[in-house]
Amino acid sequence: MSPLPIPLRGIIPPLVTPLKDRDALDVPGLERVIRHALAGGVHGLFLLGTTGEGPSLSHRLRRELIERSCKLVNGRVPLLFGITDTSFVESVNLARAAAEAGADAVVLSPPYYMPEGQPELREYLEHLLPELPLPLFLYNMPPLTKVPFELDVVRWALDQPRIVGMKDSSGSMVYFNRAREATRARAGWSLLIGPEELLAEAVLLGGHGGVCASANIFPRLYVELYAAAQRGDLPRVRALHTVTMRVAEEVYRVGQHPSAVIKGVKCALSCLGLCDDFMAEPFHRFGEPERRRIQAALKVVQPCVATALGAAAG
Amino acid sequence: MSPLPIPLRGIIPPLVTPLKDRDALDVPGLERVIRHALAGGVHGLFLLGTTGEGPSLSHRLRRELIERSCKLVNGRVPLLFGITDTSFVESVNLARAAAEAGADAVVLSPPYYMPEGQPELREYLEHLLPELPLPLFLYNMPPLTKVPFELDVVRWALDQPRIVGMKDSSGSMVYFNRAREATRARAGWSLLIGPEELLAEAVLLGGHGGVCASANIFPRLYVELYAAAQRGDLPRVRALHTVTMRVAEEVYRVGQHPSAVIKGVKCALSCLGLCDDFMAEPFHRFGEPERRRIQAALKVVQPCVATALGAAAG
Amino acid sequence: MSPLPIPLRGIIPPLVTPLKDRDALDVPGLERVIRHALAGGVHGLFLLGTTGEGPSLSHRLRRELIERSCKLVNGRVPLLFGITDTSFVESVNLARAAAEAGADAVVLSPPYYMPEGQPELREYLEHLLPELPLPLFLYNMPPLTKVPFELDVVRWALDQPRIVGMKDSSGSMVYFNRAREATRARAGWSLLIGPEELLAEAVLLGGHGGVCASANIFPRLYVELYAAAQRGDLPRVRALHTVTMRVAEEVYRVGQHPSAVIKGVKCALSCLGLCDDFMAEPFHRFGEPERRRIQAALKVVQPCVATALGAAAG
Amino acid sequence: MSPLPIPLRGIIPPLVTPLKDRDALDVPGLERVIRHALAGGVHGLFLLGTTGEGPSLSHRLRRELIERSCKLVNGRVPLLFGITDTSFVESVNLARAAAEAGADAVVLSPPYYMPEGQPELREYLEHLLPELPLPLFLYNMPPLTKVPFELDVVRWALDQPRIVGMKDSSGSMVYFNRAREATRARAGWSLLIGPEELLAEAVLLGGHGGVCASANIFPRLYVELYAAAQRGDLPRVRALHTVTMRVAEEVYRVGQHPSAVIKGVKCALSCLGLCDDFMAEPFHRFGEPERRRIQAALKVVQPCVATALGAAAG
Repeated sequence: MSPLPIPLRGIIPPLVTPLKDRDALDVPGLERVIRHALAGGVHGLFLLGTTGEGPSLSHRLRRELIERSCKLVNGRVPLLFGITDTSFVESVNLARAAAEAGADAVVLSPPYYMPEGQPELREYLEHLLPELPLPLFLYNMPPLTKVPFELDVVRWALDQPRIVGMKDSSGSMVYFNRAREATRARAGWSLLIGPEELLAEAVLLGGHGGVCASANIFPRLYVELYAAAQRGDLPRVRALHTVTMRVAEEVYRVGQHPSAVIKGVKCALSCLGLCDDFMAEPFHRFGEPERRRIQAALKVVQPCVATALGAAAG
Repeated sequence: MSPLPIPLRGIIPPLVTPLKDRDALDVPGLERVIRHALAGGVHGLFLLGTTGEGPSLSHRLRRELIERSCKLVNGRVPLLFGITDTSFVESVNLARAAAEAGADAVVLSPPYYMPEGQPELREYLEHLLPELPLPLFLYNMPPLTKVPFELDVVRWALDQPRIVGMKDSSGSMVYFNRAREATRARAGWSLLIGPEELLAEAVLLGGHGGVCASANIFPRLYVELYAAAQRGDLPRVRALHTVTMRVAEEVYRVGQHPSAVIKGVKCALSCLGLCDDFMAEPFHRFGEPERRRIQAALKVVQPCVATALGAAAG
Repeated sequence: MSPLPIPLRGIIPPLVTPLKDRDALDVPGLERVIRHALAGGVHGLFLLGTTGEGPSLSHRLRRELIERSCKLVNGRVPLLFGITDTSFVESVNLARAAAEAGADAVVLSPPYYMPEGQPELREYLEHLLPELPLPLFLYNMPPLTKVPFELDVVRWALDQPRIVGMKDSSGSMVYFNRAREATRARAGWSLLIGPEELLAEAVLLGGHGGVCASANIFPRLYVELYAAAQRGDLPRVRALHTVTMRVAEEVYRVGQHPSAVIKGVKCALSCLGLCDDFMAEPFHRFGEPERRRIQAALKVVQPCVATALGAAAG
Repeated sequence: MSPLPIPLRGIIPPLVTPLKDRDALDVPGLERVIRHALAGGVHGLFLLGTTGEGPSLSHRLRRELIERSCKLVNGRVPLLFGITDTSFVESVNLARAAAEAGADAVVLSPPYYMPEGQPELREYLEHLLPELPLPLFLYNMPPLTKVPFELDVVRWALDQPRIVGMKDSSGSMVYFNRAREATRARAGWSLLIGPEELLAEAVLLGGHGGVCASANIFPRLYVELYAAAQRGDLPRVRALHTVTMRVAEEVYRVGQHPSAVIKGVKCALSCLGLCDDFMAEPFHRFGEPERRRIQAALKVVQPCVATALGAAAG
């Protein structure tokens, strides 16, 4: 376990889970995607999130992934694992497995089948916290969980020493900005943004970093954008932000359904030779026509990314 | 295993899961709620549904519940078990446990974290069906799963011999009526309604029965309403329907959140001495003020139910 | 003005507004669609509703339609006019025009731009009622207005002598059933159902009638279905209900957007030679391919309707 | 008419409509709020928007407001008027009244009763554009209109010379960022942000300005924030952004309903002696307790604003 920085800052990609079959990890693929991300300079890794298809995996496979990735990373960067589940008991089981394997923190969305009210959600957290052996990040993801962490619960969370931050994937910068103002008082609380299209503005105005899906593909691009925003280099931020918008436009719009984002990332990684693009149900890898469009997209964006990063180096 | 009637008809209560702690069944309570339902003449039991808090339970406890309830019921009525899960592998595991224990069918909603498109949902079903050792009921529950079974998928399901019916909890009678017209052609397909407020009309116009939450409390009331609707006894249907509307109005409006329905049912069963009212997270049993309101509600509705049923007997 | 029956019962079609241009009535078409509906035995007419494209028309044209239709109907059946508007003052203006022309009642949805809370909605009604020269029907239409009439407001409305009923187009029969139980106490209050797919069950269980869009095309079909449900003739209800489901399936699924329903009705009326199919913006009449599909649909459903009605006559 | 800058940039407050009664302007109040905004250095005024309660006003009053405000402003800044209406004909009528009075541009949301599809919306715009005597801004406001301007329609709009920009009030910065990238190619197109909480980031990354409701109260605060963001002065942006977040937190959270924002602005203006706080139906002015909370809020934020602006001057 690496010491968890307080607050956690920077680019923490939501790592894809390379699979070779429905209940089988693509272990060499996992090694390569981790190596690729670390080579790009990322500040941590978040596994078993939405991009990692966490809720779609068997509990057995989730535990295997926890163990293998902890060994592979071996303390070089902080490792966070999603423990979101509709069952309290299973979330605790996952958290214990993460602690035993040497993880640094766990990440939790509201349980996402039953639509709990906010007072119920807070009581759920009160009951869960004493069972967790690791620090906790909240994960606000109302498009998928139906239930958000409303600001009153976030304010309550500031008084819980074991809750050390939040990843906000609501897509609402009004919410993010309000949460930033509300959480500023607690030193060491980390506020991270989910959608990579919002990384630039989140960091420019005081957010701590981003959990960018495309940092699986182009880790250094997001690391550089984060760094430019951190030091207030606006021209550089604008240039890199435009490249990241281009990446999202090209890689995320190939499929017809909301799965297009995850499928696009995994297919791109497969095109780059990093891992298999097998998807956990209920998703399925792109067919040949979509794969060719992703290949074409990569041909378009790779030079943009290279030019932008080269300019940084120069 | 009792032979599964083709089509399955009548009242199949979504059984509550009596708990004495977060990961511990209230076994005597389970015996009593099953005995109570069977004494009321129900035509089957559906366990591990929404009212049964299925997704909130650990997988270990779900398997224990499957085994115990199969032994307790011992073939007297058909037993259906929910296997809905965000993980394909875990759904298959549950289906196998159900088959081994002697269940009659399994029940499945769309995976409810990832928002799959309809073609993805259909392909998911295509992959799942060969893995299932038991007949399958679809469970349409878009308010909780976000994703419905649209009618095109239902029409496709009619050609799958292993899919033998659907429970519709969408709340939309336009959908239910369209599904009834679309599925009429397949003999033996069972179309069941979820919300008990809609049981009367669903059966009057050709539906096969209902999965009524309050049949946990007053099983005979719903059995009688079903029978009256089946034989086209309109005056009796109207009288009993009004009583069931009263039950829902009194028992389901005590809490502030959507959980009010499940909490109300479990609290009422506890007031009647049938089982513990411990709730799985993220819900929690009613406090004293709410419990007193449920007790008062029972005092109001019990005589109405008794009078209505007495009139039937008379 | 015909005396308004208390409660209003039966089939009150939401009349289309025949147009020959963006701000010009198709007057002969209007005469024919009114004559067609009356010949089918309808119990009233509702103009300037959703099917009548009321909010899409200029205020000048709405007033012209009010005057012409009052003259044409000349007291043979009750005439109701939609006065829903985002502006209180314009709603009052429309209500006065309706009263002057001899209308029987006005119909009002919640203002549909600003999302008012329920207490604000109730205060709005308190202010509006004294300004209205005619009895008022509430029109519950949350899919389009965003804001529903929640049951607390409906209960309050029961104490307002000038509010004489409600048309519910929410699509939720749980709501409709709850509203029916809640409003039963007020003699003379009329509860009408919007979606024609729900007419049978609404009337079987105690509703007063329906505002069926396809009663523009086949008025007698819905009049017969209403009558059968009123007298509790279940076999006849089931037979006619299946025909009405068929009509909706064939006529309403030609277009790609929610406008498919209104476009389908108006196109069918045009194919039958009853009126022009010019649509008010933001809608536009079907193109030739869609029109041919509507013609084919009519060829399918007309014999079904004729057979069903002939059986009634025989 | 002042020449409309191409592109329009800066702070264009969505002016409240001061009322002394349901259909009567508070004319001295109107003079004062306009004078107050101009004294704060705003770059234009947008009347008859959401904050201006446009859709809630009678058409007569809308025309009176157009005429009076054109005379009062007398070309000192560009004047934009909302012409959004569910009726095409009424929108054209308003646009003509605006042109005759000397306005600079009109602003239009999708018609908001009928839920048109995107191809229908585009055809509607094609038909509307030739009828408009003034340049057009699109107004993307899906929370209230249900229908957004999707990016395909925005791309089409770039080829229409009469469409000169868009105000985006969707609240989604992913949408705004995508729109900015998509519209960058058309020189002179103005992309403005609605929610004031997003002004800083919108302008930092290339947006042209904001239509900030609280610029009615503190015009100079938003003008300074815009200027700081324009010139890339990040420390100043962060300081002023925090003040604007504080204003929103204090002034917008007093009421219980979505109306809290508009009521808060109008009540604050009334507390400052600028205009009456009479609200158009279906809203109603705050009662005494809420008014006292707004007064207290002003006492909190006025010194923050003054300090922040003083620092700028110093």
